[in-house]
Amino acid sequence: GGSHLLMFIPWEETQGCIQPLQDNRSVCPQQHWAAEEVQGNASMEHTFFSLDYQHVQVPFEITLWIMLASLAKIAFHLYNKLPSVVPESCLLIFVGLIMGGIIYGLNDKSPPVMDSDIFFLYLLPPIVLDAGYFMPSRPFFENIGTILLYAVVGTIWNVFGIGFSLYGICQVRAFGLRDVSLLHNLLFGSLISAVDPVAVLAVFEEIHVNEKLHILVFGESLLNDAVTVVLYKLFRSFCEMPAIKTVDVFAGVGKFFVVGIGGVLVGLTFGMTSAFTTRFTKDIRVIEPLFVFLYSYLSYLTAEMFHLSGIVAIIACAMGMKRYVEANISLKSHTTVKYFMKMWSSVSDTLIFIFLGVSTIGENHEWNWPYIFFTVIFCLIWRALGVLVLTFFVNRFHVNTVTSKDQFIIAYGGLRGAICFSLVFLLPDFRRKKLFIAATTVVILFTVFAQGMTIRPLVDLLHVKRKRESAPTVGEQIHIRFLDHLLAGIEDISGHWGQYYWKDKLEYFNSKYLQKFLLREYDQPKSSIVLLYEKLERKHAIELAEAGQLGHAPSHPSLL
Amino acid sequence: GGSHLLMFIPWEETQGCIQPLQDNRSVCPQQHWAAEEVQGNASMEHTFFSLDYQHVQVPFEITLWIMLASLAKIAFHLYNKLPSVVPESCLLIFVGLIMGGIIYGLNDKSPPVMDSDIFFLYLLPPIVLDAGYFMPSRPFFENIGTILLYAVVGTIWNVFGIGFSLYGICQVRAFGLRDVSLLHNLLFGSLISAVDPVAVLAVFEEIHVNEKLHILVFGESLLNDAVTVVLYKLFRSFCEMPAIKTVDVFAGVGKFFVVGIGGVLVGLTFGMTSAFTTRFTKDIRVIEPLFVFLYSYLSYLTAEMFHLSGIVAIIACAMGMKRYVEANISLKSHTTVKYFMKMWSSVSDTLIFIFLGVSTIGENHEWNWPYIFFTVIFCLIWRALGVLVLTFFVNRFHVNTVTSKDQFIIAYGGLRGAICFSLVFLLPDFRRKKLFIAATTVVILFTVFAQGMTIRPLVDLLHVKRKRESAPTVGEQIHIRFLDHLLAGIEDISGHWGQYYWKDKLEYFNSKYLQKFLLREYDQPKSSIVLLYEKLERKHAIELAEAGQLGHAPSHPSLL
Repeated sequence: GGSHLLMFIPWEETQGCIQPLQDNRSVCPQQHWAAEEVQGNASMEHTFFSLDYQHVQVPFEITLWIMLASLAKIAFHLYNKLPSVVPESCLLIFVGLIMGGIIYGLNDKSPPVMDSDIFFLYLLPPIVLDAGYFMPSRPFFENIGTILLYAVVGTIWNVFGIGFSLYGICQVRAFGLRDVSLLHNLLFGSLISAVDPVAVLAVFEEIHVNEKLHILVFGESLLNDAVTVVLYKLFRSFCEMPAIKTVDVFAGVGKFFVVGIGGVLVGLTFGMTSAFTTRFTKDIRVIEPLFVFLYSYLSYLTAEMFHLSGIVAIIACAMGMKRYVEANISLKSHTTVKYFMKMWSSVSDTLIFIFLGVSTIGENHEWNWPYIFFTVIFCLIWRALGVLVLTFFVNRFHVNTVTSKDQFIIAYGGLRGAICFSLVFLLPDFRRKKLFIAATTVVILFTVFAQGMTIRPLVDLLHVKRKRESAPTVGEQIHIRFLDHLLAGIEDISGHWGQYYWKDKLEYFNSKYLQKFLLREYDQPKSSIVLLYEKLERKHAIELAEAGQLGHAPSHPSLL
Repeated sequence: GGSHLLMFIPWEETQGCIQPLQDNRSVCPQQHWAAEEVQGNASMEHTFFSLDYQHVQVPFEITLWIMLASLAKIAFHLYNKLPSVVPESCLLIFVGLIMGGIIYGLNDKSPPVMDSDIFFLYLLPPIVLDAGYFMPSRPFFENIGTILLYAVVGTIWNVFGIGFSLYGICQVRAFGLRDVSLLHNLLFGSLISAVDPVAVLAVFEEIHVNEKLHILVFGESLLNDAVTVVLYKLFRSFCEMPAIKTVDVFAGVGKFFVVGIGGVLVGLTFGMTSAFTTRFTKDIRVIEPLFVFLYSYLSYLTAEMFHLSGIVAIIACAMGMKRYVEANISLKSHTTVKYFMKMWSSVSDTLIFIFLGVSTIGENHEWNWPYIFFTVIFCLIWRALGVLVLTFFVNRFHVNTVTSKDQFIIAYGGLRGAICFSLVFLLPDFRRKKLFIAATTVVILFTVFAQGMTIRPLVDLLHVKRKRESAPTVGEQIHIRFLDHLLAGIEDISGHWGQYYWKDKLEYFNSKYLQKFLLREYDQPKSSIVLLYEKLERKHAIELAEAGQLGHAPSHPSLL
């Protein structure tokens, strides 16, 4: 049977494109055969059906993979009951596990693992771009302090907590783990602590918790990338150094700021350039959507190139450009951007979970019960403790308190995913790498399956505040805007420069300088209520058109 | 200066992915440097700014190329006068020539040429898909006989005409071309005869001739792919054979039908599967547009894999699926499909012309004045003669006559483009390959620049019938439908089974079987006037929404 082989070549093939094959996992037989076929063609050109598979191999198999992922998604939704009980991510991992098992059984060697380069360069950016572009900016900025606290302090807390306590476990002679050093445990802690945006999004989009809770967990999972990148690289280089100097530790601390703030700056630069570019696309509407994608992707790649946080960069880029781009491009271009982004991230997401399942099967694992068991336990404990302690401080200094129900969901929603998985495979080869891979796989499967599947019943059980379904009314929007200005005024008078003060200043800077430079049609800044009215009108017209109700309206002279 | 190098690596790099580098055009210095940098990182992790270019190289440079193409397009449109005089394709080739010249000057070696695999696998399909999906099916099928005659007989006529007359030129001792055999001349004729859909589309979309004339030239350029593929491969294999048997020639004739009809069948199979798949996407609208792209691309790749005509397959797929897919998917998905297709094909188109310019520069050419001069002359003469002779027969047997003005534009619009260019580079190495490359380049530049730039003034001068700007009215549409049925009745009674008879039968088969199987919501076939009304209503509502006029309508209770 060559057909199962056929499905799995692209993986090694594409890997070959990006980096030289590190492990010579053999030139696959398919390729030999294809090469012979081509040879055969030259001498026997007039056969009616000849096959040249090698020629189309790469695009053909990439397309087939995406097709498989999309069809799997359709299949789940045909049974309405299934997705309402089990999150889609679990189902997809399950499909991957089955496929991995089939390949392993037929092929008698481990199925190929998800390539880290493909993950970080091609699969992750669309998801993060989608997340950043549609990030609700108001709740995000209102809670930015809390999010940063969870993302930075919380992640460091988890890394050191898990690292040190696992080191403690390693000291127990009976477990046979004495050779795992503290640094290796910290390195493992740094890769296992990162809450995964893809996994969080997949689960939280289905359970519809209130906006604030959603943004707290999701924002943390996005912004902890900077911390994870720094700690992971720091410990990895420490592991390879003969001796660690104090200066190295301080440099590591400095790097936090460089990686995070650098990412924001790279992102904003590309975002503003993108907004500026769309000023000039009036005559060629057709390529407008392209710039949104190109500049965002460039910001991600540029940040990665300079070892900054690509995730932070693409989010800053997307959030920075959004309002100007939307004002410059046509409505249809905007629809294209929106739906294509959603489509792309959905496909990436699906592929990631399927590959995660496939990669789980095989002989990459070293099983050590105590280490794996305690990894899961410590991940749960340290996250719960971290959320408790940090929320205590948040509730002391912040007006909007995080309730104890919210705290539970935040702690429980700390899902791990493909980022951990890719990071553990990126580790340099050392004796216990397979143990780390096994532990990471178990933690991911545990969080996605056990926590992911039970979080919905728990949300129901605890009566966690849900997302309001209806959009805010015009009255509410006016009220919110009025309050913003009032609070900015109060902050200014009282001399306390809080978020409303800065928001007001930023808005002033925006309408005074940025808009003039970045928007094409800049006359006078329209009153916010006029803008709101226009927006509602447009939305309404499209809804009418889709429902086909416009025809029943009494008078439309232009039809006659 | 390393920056100019940086821009040009992807080409060789990506080439390396798809096929092993045939000419060891050296590992570029950039890559060495990147590799060193990575090495350096391991020991000096705490430097604040380190650069890892190799890691992001492939996606980064592909993105930069697309960005360059898009920005070039914007730049042209900033000067409103330029695109109205010079076709965009010429401007883009010009940009490519300049870039090629800069690279050649700085680098002192020929800039990389457009890779044929990249062209056929990645750049051509989006353009053909766009063309096929938005092909006006009525004029296409009304003129299918004429189009096929031009595409099949016309192309064969050109191939043999150009091939034999160039062989005659080669017999002149003074020209020093005695070593170019008849078979090589015919092979050259087969690759230079193909009218290029990309070039034709680029020019004809700007000059707005009437629909029939447009479909005649454009349809020919698409459907001649089957003929070109067969003849090119046939002559190429003949060139390598020691002796040609009669059976080979007959097999070649048989292949025409296999390649063409096989392409249509592959395309229709994937098209129907695509329509069937979209029946089940109601609950996951977000990935609907994906299937249109995936199935079309698979049809192209599958056809190419079996040495059938990929262009014919993708057109059959797109035209076959369109009406069912449009009925199944949501309006927003449809907008996404439409605009993304347009965007993608526009980018591909731009890249092709830029690369065409870049590839022209360098030392790939062998200059022989007589051969090149006579190639251009023969291309013009044989095309003109072919159109005259074929139109003579068309006008005898067909009701809609092709006027002499139309004939002139058809002959003059036979532009050559990137397909010829890619085919000439795909030739096996032999002594005169560089001469063929030079001749092909000159023919392409001559047709695109000289003919492409003068065709608009000629269309004005000859008063060629233009495209009507307004859409047909409801009355006209009803009238056309009524006439169709009437003519089908007349044909049935008179026993003459013409196009109306077959159209009627196909429509019956469609509403009786296909629609039930392929459409999700199939109740009763709606009367065509109801469908038309709904379509107009929807269009109108969107126009209103875009113009923001809906707000001035008197009563909208849902807003309150």
